[in-house]
Amino acid sequence: MTVNLGVIGAGRIGKVHAENLVNRIPEARVTAIADVRLDVAQSLASTLNIPLVTADYRDVLASPDVDAVLVCSSTDTHSEIIEAAARAGKHIFAEKPIDLDLATIDRVLAAVEQAGVKFFVGFNRRFDPTYARVHEAIHSGMLGEVHLLHIISRDPSPPPIEYVRVSGGIFVDMMIHDFDMARFLVGSEVEEVYTRAAVRIDPRIGEAGDVDTAVVMLTFANGVIGTIDNSRQAVYGYDQRVEVLGSKGAASTGNVYPNQVTFSTASSICRDLPLNFFMERYTESYEREMRAFVKSIVEGTPPPVGPADGRIPVVMALAAKKSLLEGRPVKLSEI
Amino acid sequence: MTVNLGVIGAGRIGKVHAENLVNRIPEARVTAIADVRLDVAQSLASTLNIPLVTADYRDVLASPDVDAVLVCSSTDTHSEIIEAAARAGKHIFAEKPIDLDLATIDRVLAAVEQAGVKFFVGFNRRFDPTYARVHEAIHSGMLGEVHLLHIISRDPSPPPIEYVRVSGGIFVDMMIHDFDMARFLVGSEVEEVYTRAAVRIDPRIGEAGDVDTAVVMLTFANGVIGTIDNSRQAVYGYDQRVEVLGSKGAASTGNVYPNQVTFSTASSICRDLPLNFFMERYTESYEREMRAFVKSIVEGTPPPVGPADGRIPVVMALAAKKSLLEGRPVKLSEI
Amino acid sequence: MTVNLGVIGAGRIGKVHAENLVNRIPEARVTAIADVRLDVAQSLASTLNIPLVTADYRDVLASPDVDAVLVCSSTDTHSEIIEAAARAGKHIFAEKPIDLDLATIDRVLAAVEQAGVKFFVGFNRRFDPTYARVHEAIHSGMLGEVHLLHIISRDPSPPPIEYVRVSGGIFVDMMIHDFDMARFLVGSEVEEVYTRAAVRIDPRIGEAGDVDTAVVMLTFANGVIGTIDNSRQAVYGYDQRVEVLGSKGAASTGNVYPNQVTFSTASSICRDLPLNFFMERYTESYEREMRAFVKSIVEGTPPPVGPADGRIPVVMALAAKKSLLEGRPVKLSEI
Amino acid sequence: MTVNLGVIGAGRIGKVHAENLVNRIPEARVTAIADVRLDVAQSLASTLNIPLVTADYRDVLASPDVDAVLVCSSTDTHSEIIEAAARAGKHIFAEKPIDLDLATIDRVLAAVEQAGVKFFVGFNRRFDPTYARVHEAIHSGMLGEVHLLHIISRDPSPPPIEYVRVSGGIFVDMMIHDFDMARFLVGSEVEEVYTRAAVRIDPRIGEAGDVDTAVVMLTFANGVIGTIDNSRQAVYGYDQRVEVLGSKGAASTGNVYPNQVTFSTASSICRDLPLNFFMERYTESYEREMRAFVKSIVEGTPPPVGPADGRIPVVMALAAKKSLLEGRPVKLSEI
Repeated sequence: MTVNLGVIGAGRIGKVHAENLVNRIPEARVTAIADVRLDVAQSLASTLNIPLVTADYRDVLASPDVDAVLVCSSTDTHSEIIEAAARAGKHIFAEKPIDLDLATIDRVLAAVEQAGVKFFVGFNRRFDPTYARVHEAIHSGMLGEVHLLHIISRDPSPPPIEYVRVSGGIFVDMMIHDFDMARFLVGSEVEEVYTRAAVRIDPRIGEAGDVDTAVVMLTFANGVIGTIDNSRQAVYGYDQRVEVLGSKGAASTGNVYPNQVTFSTASSICRDLPLNFFMERYTESYEREMRAFVKSIVEGTPPPVGPADGRIPVVMALAAKKSLLEGRPVKLSEI
Repeated sequence: MTVNLGVIGAGRIGKVHAENLVNRIPEARVTAIADVRLDVAQSLASTLNIPLVTADYRDVLASPDVDAVLVCSSTDTHSEIIEAAARAGKHIFAEKPIDLDLATIDRVLAAVEQAGVKFFVGFNRRFDPTYARVHEAIHSGMLGEVHLLHIISRDPSPPPIEYVRVSGGIFVDMMIHDFDMARFLVGSEVEEVYTRAAVRIDPRIGEAGDVDTAVVMLTFANGVIGTIDNSRQAVYGYDQRVEVLGSKGAASTGNVYPNQVTFSTASSICRDLPLNFFMERYTESYEREMRAFVKSIVEGTPPPVGPADGRIPVVMALAAKKSLLEGRPVKLSEI
Repeated sequence: MTVNLGVIGAGRIGKVHAENLVNRIPEARVTAIADVRLDVAQSLASTLNIPLVTADYRDVLASPDVDAVLVCSSTDTHSEIIEAAARAGKHIFAEKPIDLDLATIDRVLAAVEQAGVKFFVGFNRRFDPTYARVHEAIHSGMLGEVHLLHIISRDPSPPPIEYVRVSGGIFVDMMIHDFDMARFLVGSEVEEVYTRAAVRIDPRIGEAGDVDTAVVMLTFANGVIGTIDNSRQAVYGYDQRVEVLGSKGAASTGNVYPNQVTFSTASSICRDLPLNFFMERYTESYEREMRAFVKSIVEGTPPPVGPADGRIPVVMALAAKKSLLEGRPVKLSEI
Repeated sequence: MTVNLGVIGAGRIGKVHAENLVNRIPEARVTAIADVRLDVAQSLASTLNIPLVTADYRDVLASPDVDAVLVCSSTDTHSEIIEAAARAGKHIFAEKPIDLDLATIDRVLAAVEQAGVKFFVGFNRRFDPTYARVHEAIHSGMLGEVHLLHIISRDPSPPPIEYVRVSGGIFVDMMIHDFDMARFLVGSEVEEVYTRAAVRIDPRIGEAGDVDTAVVMLTFANGVIGTIDNSRQAVYGYDQRVEVLGSKGAASTGNVYPNQVTFSTASSICRDLPLNFFMERYTESYEREMRAFVKSIVEGTPPPVGPADGRIPVVMALAAKKSLLEGRPVKLSEI
């Protein structure tokens, strides 16, 4: 069986998904592409031999040659497009977040449920071989009962200030991945968060109403205690790690490097910096993610990252922000 | 110049200090040893050729051949002995904690100050080559401004339940080292703590009124945010690590191993477990600590770990415990 | 400019090259594919949309839609096909070795030279990011003058005995890659080899006239001394490493792993085995190799791995074998 | 039982042994010390409370308070002192090499055998925890049958030229440790060596008749093939490693570092250089070596490093040198 897919949004991540679908996933065909910047869509369509090109995503939804869509447009358009896609009966892969407003998210998810289409949220890190291996170690019982979790997630440099102004802030645009990772690894829901954060890297981030350095403590329903550490700038590059302590053992992960060379010089023993940012670091995860989406359609199985996985991390982000503003632990049930 | 020292308490740690003084520190002589278990004191005195042996520490304080004392007796006797030693005009090295009661600590430290003797608190980890190197990297400016700190400190197995019942609990008997390390590394005082903790390893620890798994979030006066993670049991052994993120770079530490062999077998790439507990892991720190104590007397310089360093970690421990009990962030100024 | 390529041989490595050309190299088009097993060729042609499919490689050479060919057929057919391709005026990428007979190699290379076509030999490891980084470190001068080189190259398990019988033996079918790597890294030619080898893994390998464990010492014209260690079986998997000592520093490489997880259990600190064999380990090198081949055609530059690079490692292999048989150091000039 | 020891030679290594005996080995007493530089002997005697001090080693041998002697004097005096000590009925610990002349070695060992005293040769690296662990892994069968061995042994910088002129050369003064290590680990004798070497670091070393960079290939009686790589200068410090491949697995060792800190900066991920030279790197081995010597006397067991272990590495060194001079593999039976 072949799945026909329409890609909505031909920017960086849309291009990655389209290329993976066309070049590496035999069961998939990309039959349509949309982008409000028509030339961008056309360029990608030409390279990948995509027949339908349009500036209007509704053309994609109207096409009988489209079984499923990828929502890779800007965040503020996600909810509208997802709802429309659901009404059109298309299966949906949506980049996170669905929306920043919980009421909107709930409305969108209700539409999805009513339509009975598959809904897959793009938390690609779950498909990274390293994180997937930690997940497997936990869920196979190899580590015993989990007691403690630490997530470290630092960007090589801050995004543009214009982005910070509209992104919803560090908890929504950056830590949301870590909230998902925490739930994914621990296999239990967070009940309470406590946040401490500061502007340490660039005062303009503070002026834009955000923080650039944040630590959130997480308390899970199953008793696990965790922490997430985010920084907008680690000068040595993209730092993405996790540690888990369980009753039978621990797992910890390292960064991914461009090569496996160690240099010994007169001043130090050293190696090159890790892969610099998410496009390089998570290359493999994007391919495996698309494969999982296509597979869930072909085999009729539930998406491994479903509607609730799109909603809960937003709740966690809102709770983390509230905790920061009010200087107290906040229960997720308050949101 | 030679310093004559009296050792009070000939148990495990008193023995380590006495041996280091006798065998490795030429400027030091151990001239007296006291232990309520006289035979224990006699045995050590015989091995190390210590002339004065007694069951009563007051004999040590009365000896004109003693310039300084090491208080290595049980915790509940620390305050009394320190006060008496100060009144006797002896310089003092005291194992931590001074006491579990702040009023008592303050009375003891007042006596020390009035006597004008040196007072050195036994936070040996400061003298460990690995932690000392991180401290140097921070304080030389190599890492820039510090933003984030994580301390991981896990024991290989829980202490006997009888110990848990009288120790004052995990924050005082175990995390106190990490509170000191946090202050030492960051070079600023903690203003607020928030604690989440649980009984995950042994229910008898809970019955004894303690927890065995704890995470404390720290907010420092200089803006650093930190976490400390303690577990009474890491099945792979003693896990003692720290991570620091600064504006110019990061430092992270690894455990210490009994050998440098990596095995490659048909099932995994592996190495032996790390050094199992503090006596092996921190061997070098104990020697360097004694050296620093003797040096501060010989050279008339202030002890690198002074009276305030004995008091503040106890305050932090009390605040961490209060935070746990009250389920809210606690400022140190509340204690 | 687009380069039209014909792939001769649709087996494992032909498939890898064809897929890389079609899916990842925009300047390349695969216009023809040949395999004596016509169904194998057809299957790949169908997946990759290759228009010309044939059982006879001469059809590929006759096609005006083919600018260059990849010779990925069995080793005993290389020389004939390369010569024919040269006469047909096609640029040539040939898997190693050109042939096992030096006179044949010389005849083939003469034909290539006369035809004036590009000739690229498939020593893919030169394009592996790790080895390329070591090469860069050496040739940038970062390591100073090179003094010593060690190459370790071990397979996870021996090939089938039928393969051993016809492959030409370990020096030609396995160590040839390391001979190329030695020349590539050191940037100088080997003058003498000395070999010690044995049958340690499977007596049937000895009965087939080969060895399974071998060490060759290399003496280079520029004074570097090197060793190569080959084993047909490292039970922990594919072990591919190199060490270089220079006057200003050293470089050493590690294996590549499927994930970056370290597990700490009650018995050891461990990680999963490295990537198991060359298809996984050298994935990236194959893509980069094809990119380099296409680029040399598009830009009209000499192939980075040219005719001499196809000949000399065979000379080294013959010398290594002679050294083993005669129990003495053998100069390459003797071959 | 207490063993009374006389130390002959109060230089660097004599001092290390004396301090270990006095401070860390309760069963040992150092009762005599000799050095032709009497003041050096007196200084050490004073620090360690050694009663008999003399410039003439014969006084030590004549003392009834001496059960065993340590021969730590200059190499050219070893044979004479060992013979005299044997005649005096003292157990003997001798620093390597016994002598550079085989006939002399044989005469000395005959004297030792006739006297029936214990004879222990100072190959301290056998007692290093890392090498001892590799030995244990091999001899426990964990690695299966050994196939390949590599030893890397590089000094941080060349010794003074005056030393090179009289030392006997790199094979005798430096690689002799590696020859012993090879025999120790493999548990079989070397039958043939082949050497390639060069002067790459300092031309004055060549003028003094020596080389500074050398690789020796070893063929063992049990079929193992090995290499040893020596350099007089690794700019990054003392590099001491070994790799073993066996039928069931492999072991490889890393260097020892002054701390366990990894720094991540804007330019690289790095750590401090390894411990710089043998006094720091092998500290623990010296203590364990002395402990083993004293234990063999106390318990009446054979020394773990006996007479043959003092002779064979000299034979290997002579063979390696002969191979270099004659440009051919040399069998040890030729020496």
